[in-house]
Amino acid sequence: MVPNKKSAVLVDGVVLNGPTTNAKTGEKFVEEACKLIMEEVVLKATDINEKVCEWQPPEQLKKLLDLEVRDTGESHDRLLKLCQDVIRFSVKTNHPRFFNQLYAGLDYYSLAARFMTEALNPSIYTYEVSPVFLLVEEAVLKKMIEFIGWKEGDGIFNPGGSVSNMYAMNLARYKYCPDIKEKGLFGLPRLTLFTSAECHYSMKKAASFLGIGTQNVCFVETDGRGKMIPEELEKQGTMPFLVCATSGTTVLGAFDPLDEIADICERHGLWLHVDASWGGSALMSRKHRRLLHGIHRADSVAWNPHKMLMAGIQCCALLVKDKSDLLKKCYSAKASYLFQQDKFYDVSYDTGDKSIQCSRRPDAFKFWMTWKALGTLGLEERVNRALALSRYLVEEIKKREGFKLLMEPEYANICFWYIPPSLREMEEGPEFWEKLHLVAPAIKERMMKKGSLMLGYQPHRGKVNFFRQVVISPQVRREDMDFLLDEIDLLGRDM
Amino acid sequence: MVPNKKSAVLVDGVVLNGPTTNAKTGEKFVEEACKLIMEEVVLKATDINEKVCEWQPPEQLKKLLDLEVRDTGESHDRLLKLCQDVIRFSVKTNHPRFFNQLYAGLDYYSLAARFMTEALNPSIYTYEVSPVFLLVEEAVLKKMIEFIGWKEGDGIFNPGGSVSNMYAMNLARYKYCPDIKEKGLFGLPRLTLFTSAECHYSMKKAASFLGIGTQNVCFVETDGRGKMIPEELEKQGTMPFLVCATSGTTVLGAFDPLDEIADICERHGLWLHVDASWGGSALMSRKHRRLLHGIHRADSVAWNPHKMLMAGIQCCALLVKDKSDLLKKCYSAKASYLFQQDKFYDVSYDTGDKSIQCSRRPDAFKFWMTWKALGTLGLEERVNRALALSRYLVEEIKKREGFKLLMEPEYANICFWYIPPSLREMEEGPEFWEKLHLVAPAIKERMMKKGSLMLGYQPHRGKVNFFRQVVISPQVRREDMDFLLDEIDLLGRDM
Repeated sequence: MVPNKKSAVLVDGVVLNGPTTNAKTGEKFVEEACKLIMEEVVLKATDINEKVCEWQPPEQLKKLLDLEVRDTGESHDRLLKLCQDVIRFSVKTNHPRFFNQLYAGLDYYSLAARFMTEALNPSIYTYEVSPVFLLVEEAVLKKMIEFIGWKEGDGIFNPGGSVSNMYAMNLARYKYCPDIKEKGLFGLPRLTLFTSAECHYSMKKAASFLGIGTQNVCFVETDGRGKMIPEELEKQGTMPFLVCATSGTTVLGAFDPLDEIADICERHGLWLHVDASWGGSALMSRKHRRLLHGIHRADSVAWNPHKMLMAGIQCCALLVKDKSDLLKKCYSAKASYLFQQDKFYDVSYDTGDKSIQCSRRPDAFKFWMTWKALGTLGLEERVNRALALSRYLVEEIKKREGFKLLMEPEYANICFWYIPPSLREMEEGPEFWEKLHLVAPAIKERMMKKGSLMLGYQPHRGKVNFFRQVVISPQVRREDMDFLLDEIDLLGRDM
Repeated sequence: MVPNKKSAVLVDGVVLNGPTTNAKTGEKFVEEACKLIMEEVVLKATDINEKVCEWQPPEQLKKLLDLEVRDTGESHDRLLKLCQDVIRFSVKTNHPRFFNQLYAGLDYYSLAARFMTEALNPSIYTYEVSPVFLLVEEAVLKKMIEFIGWKEGDGIFNPGGSVSNMYAMNLARYKYCPDIKEKGLFGLPRLTLFTSAECHYSMKKAASFLGIGTQNVCFVETDGRGKMIPEELEKQGTMPFLVCATSGTTVLGAFDPLDEIADICERHGLWLHVDASWGGSALMSRKHRRLLHGIHRADSVAWNPHKMLMAGIQCCALLVKDKSDLLKKCYSAKASYLFQQDKFYDVSYDTGDKSIQCSRRPDAFKFWMTWKALGTLGLEERVNRALALSRYLVEEIKKREGFKLLMEPEYANICFWYIPPSLREMEEGPEFWEKLHLVAPAIKERMMKKGSLMLGYQPHRGKVNFFRQVVISPQVRREDMDFLLDEIDLLGRDM
């Protein structure tokens, strides 16, 4: 709309009548971008003939993309071309052959919900600004708490499982010594926490960040399958304020024996946090929830529905058994401009003071939409199928020459070596391992440059580089498992 | 696609051939949801005849929405009806008369970018998974650093300004004493930090969370306009590891005198962090950037483009002057499954180890798209217009009976009282203030129930409840400023 010049009001050289933006043009752009997104991302997401990635090294990609922002804006045509390039050179995490991380695939319901929240642009601190999304969060947390097996509880969605783990660590510390909130750690005896040697690296990051220090994280030894050994936990000399167990470790997908760990925690009155960021989704399956047997005895649980339940990055809940408002007591700062107590509605719905964030995204909503669409049974089917596909892959690996499992997996992480022809006859001595260590990175490079699939590799606790295959999405077929092994063999058979 | 039964592979009772999800149905749903979003959210965003909110109290809204998730899923028709309800009962933060928070309005370019990233679902830890979005983040950070006035620097996008402030606090602490990362705070003398008495509440949250304790946050007195008094800072006895100045306080929109504070910090060798989450956007305007005069002398700056630059919740950068890789040294945990050093590309592009998060959203991208579309000049125009509209409103308030400014604003926060007819003749004694304190909440209740506009109120440092009007969006017109005052008068004139 052109400002009405007739009754124009000029302040500081700016004409204030009418809006300055042309809504029609803007709406048109959004529509065109949506069309592009549907065609180039959504409709192609299930097409195995598309590349998983169109690899370009950083310096080259900088030249291909026009990254610089300038004084004057670009035309819509130019912007749409830019969008096309962004899509083209982005990794297709939706692709049925993207197996690189602990998330993958495209959930249509969650995606629709995410489009909706982006358009509504809410921030969930108070009921007055986010009535619907706060109620949805409450409903989802309640249901997740039910699946953990607690009668009641509390919780909050966070930007990442790492942040959930930090929340839990701070909460346990607050419970152990509430004075720390005001006085800090100065003058206190050293606080320590115990966690498995295979835990997520966020435990170390959290310990640093919270002023506890990484040296005060005691790593409890694990067995050959990556599970914490309860006897080793009991043996630790000092008394921690927190024990962290992991349900679904990042690399091996191992599940710590929660029941036995809970026994020890109960005996010594320790806060038990379970990092089930990855493995928590097994709770949806009656068949597989036994992996987390004993989780109801935890004091807090981190669980990321954006992983196996495909809610979209990020969707991460911290769940807390306590119902004495511990989260609020621990985190509140009582900002008077947000959490006025003289509001006309029940201000207990203003949950923003339970958070370290001020503005916060409505992450529960996208998971809620998927859960609504599929029902609990549909989510269960997803978990069951991902684990059945993993099982299939394991059996295939056992049958094939040149493939070697690290161990029988418990979950959807299948860790294996590809042994190229030149190493197959070699004895498994230092030279063998040294050479094998170079194989996965070399195959990964070829794979990325070809764009045919993506899966991760890493060395791990004395084991040389191996592949970690992760199965999640219901768009993945048995044929993709076969393809994976064929393709690795194809890429590595001259090595 | 129905699994091919002929060569069906059955594992654990699950048929593994073909995908289980029906892509066509899913795609159709996304298309229908997009249509709904365009019609009900995007196209209505500029329509002042729509309500800002459709108020329902929590218990009532729970009954109106079908929040429960069940064993079986719902039909698409039912889901679309649900989406409609979610939109209907959500607050329209895009509405030209939503003035309740430090963000508002609809930016079409940022929205298109957000749709794109939701569809691509990236997580930005490594270049191999997020090549485009990591390069975009780098380009945007570089440009923001230029606007701060540093020759070079580093930075990271975070889920909120509160988190950026925490990052800065921890970084300053690391610089002060790198041992804390490993050893924690135990046995150390008390660490203190100085910040303005009007600073954002996240400084207290951060001090608790980091184990420093809220008691070790020294609040430096401010003048009548909410600006830190440099002499008061100099007077503090103990030596802090950090001084935090605020550029654009939350309630009053005050800017601390950065140059004078920087002098003191320089004299004592202190880390200066500037929380410019709200006020940072003034840097885009040649006319208004003097509000942040001296910001180039800061060691770190928090700046949220999701506020006045409308990038969408959340878009928050922490910028750091240091170029010795301090962020990485302070935050790294060197996870071997993500940050392998034997990758085939330049791993300095894997910036994930600078973060406390593991998965992280590509928040820089939506801001980049807007910047590309409008150019620096277009962003400058937005800031200039918002501040000109604020100026207009201030002059109108001065002219109108029954309205009283708290003070001349520096920025886009206009704080004022509405004095209803019954109080206009009363002396400004205790009874007057007591009664006036009740006015804003009562008007806010009527406003919410009518749905005609939304703005915030709060008491603040001895001042009774007053309104805080915030002007941001280019969709807002002078007429909306007039409407605001008319409407408040209409709602309160019988009081």
